[in-house]
Amino acid sequence: MHDTEVFVSFRPSDREVFVLPGTRLVEAAAGAGIVLDMPCGGEGICGHCRVKVTQGAGPPTAAEVEQFSAAELEAGWRLACQTAVLGPAEVEIPAASLASAMHQILVQTEAAAAAASDDPPVRKRHVRLVPPGRGNDASDLTRLEQGLQSGPLTADLPLLSELSGRLREFGFQGTAVLDDGRLIDFEQGDTAADAFAVALDIGTTTLVAALLDLGTGSEWAVASRLNPQTQFGDDVVSRIDYARQGPAGLQQLHESIAAAVEEMLAELCRQAGVAGDRIYQIVCAGNTTMQQLLCGVDCRPLGEVPFVPASQRGLVFRSSEIGLPIHPRGAAYVLPVIGGFVGGDTVAGILATGLADAGKPTLLVDIGTNGEIVLLADGKLSAASTAAGPAFEGARISCGMRGSSGAIEKVVVNHDGRLHFNVIGNVAAVGLCGSGLIDVTAELLRHGVLNGMGRLQTPDQLGEHVPADLVGRLTVEHNQVAFLLASAEEAGDGSRIALTQRDFREVQLAAGAIRAGISLLLRRAGLKPADLDRVLIGGGFGNFIRRSNAQRIGLLPPQVERPRIRYMGNTSLAGAKLAALSQRARALAEELAARTEHVDLSTDPEFSATFAESMIFPEL
Amino acid sequence: MHDTEVFVSFRPSDREVFVLPGTRLVEAAAGAGIVLDMPCGGEGICGHCRVKVTQGAGPPTAAEVEQFSAAELEAGWRLACQTAVLGPAEVEIPAASLASAMHQILVQTEAAAAAASDDPPVRKRHVRLVPPGRGNDASDLTRLEQGLQSGPLTADLPLLSELSGRLREFGFQGTAVLDDGRLIDFEQGDTAADAFAVALDIGTTTLVAALLDLGTGSEWAVASRLNPQTQFGDDVVSRIDYARQGPAGLQQLHESIAAAVEEMLAELCRQAGVAGDRIYQIVCAGNTTMQQLLCGVDCRPLGEVPFVPASQRGLVFRSSEIGLPIHPRGAAYVLPVIGGFVGGDTVAGILATGLADAGKPTLLVDIGTNGEIVLLADGKLSAASTAAGPAFEGARISCGMRGSSGAIEKVVVNHDGRLHFNVIGNVAAVGLCGSGLIDVTAELLRHGVLNGMGRLQTPDQLGEHVPADLVGRLTVEHNQVAFLLASAEEAGDGSRIALTQRDFREVQLAAGAIRAGISLLLRRAGLKPADLDRVLIGGGFGNFIRRSNAQRIGLLPPQVERPRIRYMGNTSLAGAKLAALSQRARALAEELAARTEHVDLSTDPEFSATFAESMIFPEL
Repeated sequence: MHDTEVFVSFRPSDREVFVLPGTRLVEAAAGAGIVLDMPCGGEGICGHCRVKVTQGAGPPTAAEVEQFSAAELEAGWRLACQTAVLGPAEVEIPAASLASAMHQILVQTEAAAAAASDDPPVRKRHVRLVPPGRGNDASDLTRLEQGLQSGPLTADLPLLSELSGRLREFGFQGTAVLDDGRLIDFEQGDTAADAFAVALDIGTTTLVAALLDLGTGSEWAVASRLNPQTQFGDDVVSRIDYARQGPAGLQQLHESIAAAVEEMLAELCRQAGVAGDRIYQIVCAGNTTMQQLLCGVDCRPLGEVPFVPASQRGLVFRSSEIGLPIHPRGAAYVLPVIGGFVGGDTVAGILATGLADAGKPTLLVDIGTNGEIVLLADGKLSAASTAAGPAFEGARISCGMRGSSGAIEKVVVNHDGRLHFNVIGNVAAVGLCGSGLIDVTAELLRHGVLNGMGRLQTPDQLGEHVPADLVGRLTVEHNQVAFLLASAEEAGDGSRIALTQRDFREVQLAAGAIRAGISLLLRRAGLKPADLDRVLIGGGFGNFIRRSNAQRIGLLPPQVERPRIRYMGNTSLAGAKLAALSQRARALAEELAARTEHVDLSTDPEFSATFAESMIFPEL
Repeated sequence: MHDTEVFVSFRPSDREVFVLPGTRLVEAAAGAGIVLDMPCGGEGICGHCRVKVTQGAGPPTAAEVEQFSAAELEAGWRLACQTAVLGPAEVEIPAASLASAMHQILVQTEAAAAAASDDPPVRKRHVRLVPPGRGNDASDLTRLEQGLQSGPLTADLPLLSELSGRLREFGFQGTAVLDDGRLIDFEQGDTAADAFAVALDIGTTTLVAALLDLGTGSEWAVASRLNPQTQFGDDVVSRIDYARQGPAGLQQLHESIAAAVEEMLAELCRQAGVAGDRIYQIVCAGNTTMQQLLCGVDCRPLGEVPFVPASQRGLVFRSSEIGLPIHPRGAAYVLPVIGGFVGGDTVAGILATGLADAGKPTLLVDIGTNGEIVLLADGKLSAASTAAGPAFEGARISCGMRGSSGAIEKVVVNHDGRLHFNVIGNVAAVGLCGSGLIDVTAELLRHGVLNGMGRLQTPDQLGEHVPADLVGRLTVEHNQVAFLLASAEEAGDGSRIALTQRDFREVQLAAGAIRAGISLLLRRAGLKPADLDRVLIGGGFGNFIRRSNAQRIGLLPPQVERPRIRYMGNTSLAGAKLAALSQRARALAEELAARTEHVDLSTDPEFSATFAESMIFPEL
């Protein structure tokens, strides 16, 4: 049955999301990239996640009746962790309900008065200088240093060439733009308030860029688009392969992504009405390959054992070196990496989630074609990547597709025993994306249609308790069992959508790889899944999966209580934003990358056994 | 009388010079840019300036007979401070006879085993790295750092882009080129011995460039040429004026000098058979205006009170930024300045002469269109420039010319009372250059033909003791007295060379300005000329003047014993060489420039009186 999503909008950020009726507000908010404060883990106890709902909420739960007065309930106050969305809703989120400091950056626009960093990498200061005269013949640069009360400054030759002329033309006053001890520019008048940076998340599939006000920390615009490198291959490995065909391939890959970033920068400027030369910094986070390709750095060694990156530390250079149209003397910072397949996006995630300071054992998982897993245990950080394969991104699944319009993104077997699904964009169903794939696998496991070894049962193998709707969807053709997710009629466009035994094998491989990685990292630290205080889900895809289903198929450890599993949003972008706004954050990123142990799981003697074991779905 | 110069060659450097017969060997060597060790001040006492003369030397002096055995004298050993050159001579200079450490750099090629600096700004090291493998997945940059046992390195993107490919192509061995913590290049094979730097002296009139071996410190080639900016004006002020006409003027000035430097670099490479991309550094010293024009930095403020430079500190940038064809990632370093008219050439001079460590009161004088004067007193350095005018460079003198072929460069009145002169290049005399102008002025003062007030006497005003040859050269035309230096016949080309009263006024102005500057600096320090332990003569012109004559006309303080006045050669180039070979020297240059007090003589209340007083030639 084809359910219709409802529209939820959030103020004051004007973010929007479509969700299935019944979705809890806290999940809807996460879907819109808003992380709410929820120290009790969503149990309705702490009362931190207060929001005001204008319409579309169901009746108050017992927890909500306890938290609020009748007048408050009347005014629309609810707990986001308790209230389900039943129809189109408008939700107002007070700044106090947002997640703590480290996460606040994720949701700068939510905060009524978002605090700017006190150590931005670029500062602007308006100064009035004492003009030269008899007995006051200090050099122009020294004069400026005296006016700024700064240490020694350096200036690129093109600026130094013009500095003397500008000082005199502007009557020895104007606004200095400083990148640490480097003078980027000297502008006429007081332009101190016009200072911007761009944070960029370079995903294998998706690029996201945010324009940040360096003065206030607020986000002025966001732009995103498909990574145009997808024309050269769907995943990281195919891009590396393309580069290995010769220098022209590397150049093509570099140019295509640089062009896309250039377009996004132009879009940000248009959206916000900001001139490109008022952007003084661009900070980039992505996997190691994407980062190197953006910089035009040879990525061929990432295609051969032991997958060596060019540089572990972050890269600092003039943005003009890769032709990015921000200020001509603006700087680019590319985050440090942990290894060839644990990149700057993971470092950004560690930074943005505050993982290193979590205290108790905590896991950060970024589910994608490569699953990146970071464990904090005993104050030590270790990280590994697992080749989960692209099943969750829709590849290698017969009816698989990306999480875009027409994708079945949610599948539920209701109490009535009937299968329901939800299609992105409320259009005819075309295929199945990763979150839907997890859902259907979990539901079929629950109802015994799929057994622990990942085998689809034939109708005659099923007991009577199995809902008739599910049994009816099993087909046997050419001795192959398949599960009909949507008949031609259900799909709405005349073509049926079914999952084969082979498709479920792919799910086993993908979930098993990540589960094995988690198990091995935990075992190295002498921990069991139940010892984990928190499991943090980062990356773009993580936000769309249902925790219970991810646990059911073993993608996330079933032994962890569900409230301890948290969606952290796009942690790659969030970390890039932190590094764009704060020098300390940048130094911390370098430190985190350097101190995180890079674990090569394939050299673990237990690797094969653990991987094989992890292929079996958990017994619950 | 037209004397013929004799040819003197020096080994092992193969330097050559033409000098008048009777010139002491130490002066002949200085003329060839070789500074000998002479702690006794040329009194023939210390025996440090031993040289071996194959032919052309006069009979040994008493001092030489005392210093050497008969066998040594027979073998040709002489003291360079005592022996005069009588005919063509060949001179061998042992390394031990060269001036002390700080000056050694001036004469690197002289030294049998010139010591290289132990802290060159660019180092090359051949390394063999452990290739990556299972369990050894450090990034390529980290791998290189480990191999070099260095701290963290940075690399420009173009190099980082290629580094991984090169490491693999070269089998993880090759030669790293390091500029401090910056990786400039990674070259195939062991190229550690091929490391060069260029030191550049950017004079207003003359450019000199030297190619230095960074490994041994030796000089492989020297090139020089006229500063092509002379087409835009003879002196610094006219260049600034040209730049003030508009940005195109500044651009023309920059491009003309950059093109000349480019040509010189090509010439150095040709001479030495060295590839341009093995030159990793270029270090430039010149007056403030020349330095800014080479860098393309606006010099217009140098044309208005209080003559403000763009930057006091030295400039560091990629040589490619001003298009210099050395290694594409090579660096340029331009020396710091003390003020708008006390530039990097003066800082280089302080550095090269070791002035700051002299202990006793010492003066460094660079005689040119602007006379730069630096005083060390009580451990403090103070510097001033005086607008001496271009008389000593041949301008504003009716028969004046530069010190080039055809210029009368030496004038002597012999015991026979006859005037003799020497012409550069042994060709027909065309005019008179600065050193000759000083000579003739001094001789006429000595013989009373010119009085203390600078007035040329008429024949009837002269006493009987005045040689008839001089009296006969005085002419009175249109009520103006003139002195005939060379009749048409003496000049050898049919045109007579004479000096007018107005010419001697120009000499008074030029010498007086420098004398006033010296007096004012000394007075500020509470010193008298006789308190000076040493007077060091720097700059290109200084080497060609006769100390006694410079003292006679008041250009140098007459109260200083002659042996205390020393020629230091081209101290601007020497300082640039030091900074090219040593990081400590570079840091010292910055420190010296910062700690030298810049004195604006024109604001001294005594300026006018002192200047007027200094116009009168000294009474001796």
